[in-house]
Amino acid sequence: MPNVENVVRVSKPYKLASREFHPEDTVVEVPSACVAGGVVHIGGPEVVMMAGPCTVETEKQLMTTAAAVRKEGAVILRGGAFKPSTSPYGFRGLGEEGLKLLAKARDEFGMAIITEVMTPTDVAMVCEYADILQVGTRNMQNYMLLDEVGRTRKPVVLKRGMSATFEEWLLAAEYILSQGNRNVILCERGIRTFEKTTRNTMDISAIPLIKRLSHLPIISDPSQGTGRRDIVGPMSLASVAAGTDALLIEVHPNPDEALKDGAQSVTIDQFRELMPQVHAVAAAIGRALVTK
Amino acid sequence: MPNVENVVRVSKPYKLASREFHPEDTVVEVPSACVAGGVVHIGGPEVVMMAGPCTVETEKQLMTTAAAVRKEGAVILRGGAFKPSTSPYGFRGLGEEGLKLLAKARDEFGMAIITEVMTPTDVAMVCEYADILQVGTRNMQNYMLLDEVGRTRKPVVLKRGMSATFEEWLLAAEYILSQGNRNVILCERGIRTFEKTTRNTMDISAIPLIKRLSHLPIISDPSQGTGRRDIVGPMSLASVAAGTDALLIEVHPNPDEALKDGAQSVTIDQFRELMPQVHAVAAAIGRALVTK
Amino acid sequence: MPNVENVVRVSKPYKLASREFHPEDTVVEVPSACVAGGVVHIGGPEVVMMAGPCTVETEKQLMTTAAAVRKEGAVILRGGAFKPSTSPYGFRGLGEEGLKLLAKARDEFGMAIITEVMTPTDVAMVCEYADILQVGTRNMQNYMLLDEVGRTRKPVVLKRGMSATFEEWLLAAEYILSQGNRNVILCERGIRTFEKTTRNTMDISAIPLIKRLSHLPIISDPSQGTGRRDIVGPMSLASVAAGTDALLIEVHPNPDEALKDGAQSVTIDQFRELMPQVHAVAAAIGRALVTK
Amino acid sequence: MPNVENVVRVSKPYKLASREFHPEDTVVEVPSACVAGGVVHIGGPEVVMMAGPCTVETEKQLMTTAAAVRKEGAVILRGGAFKPSTSPYGFRGLGEEGLKLLAKARDEFGMAIITEVMTPTDVAMVCEYADILQVGTRNMQNYMLLDEVGRTRKPVVLKRGMSATFEEWLLAAEYILSQGNRNVILCERGIRTFEKTTRNTMDISAIPLIKRLSHLPIISDPSQGTGRRDIVGPMSLASVAAGTDALLIEVHPNPDEALKDGAQSVTIDQFRELMPQVHAVAAAIGRALVTK
Repeated sequence: MPNVENVVRVSKPYKLASREFHPEDTVVEVPSACVAGGVVHIGGPEVVMMAGPCTVETEKQLMTTAAAVRKEGAVILRGGAFKPSTSPYGFRGLGEEGLKLLAKARDEFGMAIITEVMTPTDVAMVCEYADILQVGTRNMQNYMLLDEVGRTRKPVVLKRGMSATFEEWLLAAEYILSQGNRNVILCERGIRTFEKTTRNTMDISAIPLIKRLSHLPIISDPSQGTGRRDIVGPMSLASVAAGTDALLIEVHPNPDEALKDGAQSVTIDQFRELMPQVHAVAAAIGRALVTK
Repeated sequence: MPNVENVVRVSKPYKLASREFHPEDTVVEVPSACVAGGVVHIGGPEVVMMAGPCTVETEKQLMTTAAAVRKEGAVILRGGAFKPSTSPYGFRGLGEEGLKLLAKARDEFGMAIITEVMTPTDVAMVCEYADILQVGTRNMQNYMLLDEVGRTRKPVVLKRGMSATFEEWLLAAEYILSQGNRNVILCERGIRTFEKTTRNTMDISAIPLIKRLSHLPIISDPSQGTGRRDIVGPMSLASVAAGTDALLIEVHPNPDEALKDGAQSVTIDQFRELMPQVHAVAAAIGRALVTK
Repeated sequence: MPNVENVVRVSKPYKLASREFHPEDTVVEVPSACVAGGVVHIGGPEVVMMAGPCTVETEKQLMTTAAAVRKEGAVILRGGAFKPSTSPYGFRGLGEEGLKLLAKARDEFGMAIITEVMTPTDVAMVCEYADILQVGTRNMQNYMLLDEVGRTRKPVVLKRGMSATFEEWLLAAEYILSQGNRNVILCERGIRTFEKTTRNTMDISAIPLIKRLSHLPIISDPSQGTGRRDIVGPMSLASVAAGTDALLIEVHPNPDEALKDGAQSVTIDQFRELMPQVHAVAAAIGRALVTK
Repeated sequence: MPNVENVVRVSKPYKLASREFHPEDTVVEVPSACVAGGVVHIGGPEVVMMAGPCTVETEKQLMTTAAAVRKEGAVILRGGAFKPSTSPYGFRGLGEEGLKLLAKARDEFGMAIITEVMTPTDVAMVCEYADILQVGTRNMQNYMLLDEVGRTRKPVVLKRGMSATFEEWLLAAEYILSQGNRNVILCERGIRTFEKTTRNTMDISAIPLIKRLSHLPIISDPSQGTGRRDIVGPMSLASVAAGTDALLIEVHPNPDEALKDGAQSVTIDQFRELMPQVHAVAAAIGRALVTK
């Protein structure tokens, strides 16, 4: 019997990632004790809120943030244990100690955990603690890392390279998919442009365009995508209006004292104000926000 | 008595355009017979729909489009009579004949007219027909044109240069303002990036950021901003969610036969479907769409 | 008899500018009393040095600079009388007074004059004083200006738009050529990139590539192209090694007191040291530098 | 006694890489049997030619190319055994088999070997065969790879990331340096721009600027830097004129049949014609090309 993957012809250099090959939306399931049924669906009719600190700093910082974002309706907790740093002298994260704190937060609040993995030899360890692996923008074309996360069956959030075209991004997804892992979620996190008042320029058009080119879920990171706390709110609403499947937002109890990327983290108060607005815009386009 | 303009200190190289100098939102008034009171306000609490063909081609094309967009709630009619063309062999517009057709559409449908002016010596003539002057992306730094539209008192839509930073854009606005014309409206129309599946990458973050940097109204052109009819809808909704003061949308009765930029013009049917969605997202963030 | 321009088929959207249409190099003749024969050829076997201040400030500044650069072998004098300024509050040049000073320098030193024209209505006046018209980077797509300089027969240096592709640049040249003016010279002056330590990134590859795509002369402006005096030297040599037909260099007797762009102007001493190096690299690739 | 590294203050975020910290040029020594003294110096007064195929395909292809480029004066042989491929379905290199062929070529022709390493766990193996490790553009911010090559003492060629600023590039070098490996060589290989007729835009200004910012050697890859065989020649000469310490050129006996990147590989004949031109331009700026 012919293998269907070899039968469907596609017009793009990527295949498994293409909408032509796989016309139906892919919905990625993430185990999450805090929701009814114990599973969050990413890429389905509902919008998902992922929130938490950029970087895990201390148990108190993480638990305070997790409690606050869970209370407002976030169902997935973000937090970096392995952090890329442009300078070798910057903070590079708590490592496995940070992963353990994330696991503890999951036990306490029932939220699924998303965290970054930076190198192939760490994949097995990070898989022990995380529910979703994140591949960062600088690693979008780290092919051996893509191969390795492709050999797991964990959901993978693949961030867009900071100067990547959609085709390059979908070819990076193809690396993971072609290793057998079909749980790939794409994340728009801003591209580099000439603008100096923002850290990145968030490309909202990625949301409807990836939906046309691919069946994979597409989510938005307005924190990295802008680098500015004061516009995370409007860019979150714009993402939802454009059809994002989830938001990934950096929240910090005291952003100005954050060890990393404080300028782009919203406060807990700002997050609390944002949630009803997200609900309202989602409702306006006929979607709901899953919160329990 | 000291001139207040010389007293307020600003931290940016632009001054009259800055929020520091002028903390209250500027609301630009445009005479428009089709709305109650006869004036449309751009930059106030309501969102405004501007729509029409990219280029005025024939009386029939213009009138058909104007009738259709007015029926759905557009209150300002767009249409190009002088068109920039990358090639000297491309269509450069009908010139004054096109302006006359626009004036005729205004008489018939009561919509205000927005149209482009490309060179200083045309400003007086275009002012005779237009309610809003448009300065295009290629002319954002055509300083003598900026000076000349600055010497009129007509509302001016100043499109962002295709690789301009916010600072350069606001300095271009400063040219107009410093000549005495305070009726400046900024328009995000996409920037050049490495992406090849779109004509431009629409920078939705310009909307909330310009609101912070400046008191001037900011509007969105998702047609030029994307170059793709199939995502004009989601990008319109994203613009509204992010706080745009108006949408400027290209509509054509038969886009595939358009003389110019058909790929980015929506059909009348698509426009009809879009309007209630725009209403819903505007309502979700507490704004209304002015339609009569 | 068929018009040859309508007979030759070209594969590019530009035609008169293309090497396919016109296989032989175009050599533009500029009257210059200081050289043997009274004419400088741009685009021929010899390399040409154009130098002078960014902006004409005073008679003394201009004459001092002209005397110095002529002494070292420059045969064309640059100097701006109409200057584009990003801010309306910046120095915009001396206008016609500056043109008169340039003409005076021509009378005294026998150098041809190149100076910028910014708007169609100034073309006739600038033609009275200048030997070469310059269209600046911000005006590369100011189509009415291109049309107007195309209606003269003066040599025109067309600077590359700061984010323009080669195709867009050659289409801009096509505007001038199609009006009948075949004396078009292209000038690489740097493109905008993400780099922050330079004002622009000079695209040296434009030199050999334009030579392949077009028959028009191509020259280099390493002052604007870098924005940094300390690398004008190596970038001049790189331009010559890559095949540039001329260099256009900003020289100022006291750059740190320049009214405009002092950071990118070399001193007279630096210019004096550079000239023999330019000679040597030109000789290494089999070309000479015309100096008398 | 204070550690000098902690005493010198630098004004940049990178330190060990900065010219302020280390004012003298770093000269990296590479063992190479084909030259007098058995050592090639990169970063000293002489210019070095590195050449060879993009990718090792077969023994015959490699040996033919190596023989030819050695005969013309290349002293270092390039060739990829581990190749990054944008698509998972592209050719990814021969792996260790390719390394063995490179070692065989070294034995036969006495040239030092430069080859890419893509992931930390391969570093030890690649070190067994290579004289210079290459970190590719996509891995410029693969921090764990940088750490690992930093723990060796092999010379490392660090290619510029395709959208990296000089500061980011020097911070990546700082990762390697701060692990104790001071044998870092920077390589300009083109940046991404809007231009479509080239694969990358080679930033020649990187050569003089890196020389000012850093003491590390800087070399040029005009093959990757342009993606076009027809301009590799002029861009090589431009690099030398601007001060490059070495050229890294792709040569293939039959480029149109290359498994990878044939469009940017020059033929053996083209390479033969180029060498005397490189000699001449180097001589014009007072440098020699080391060939034996």
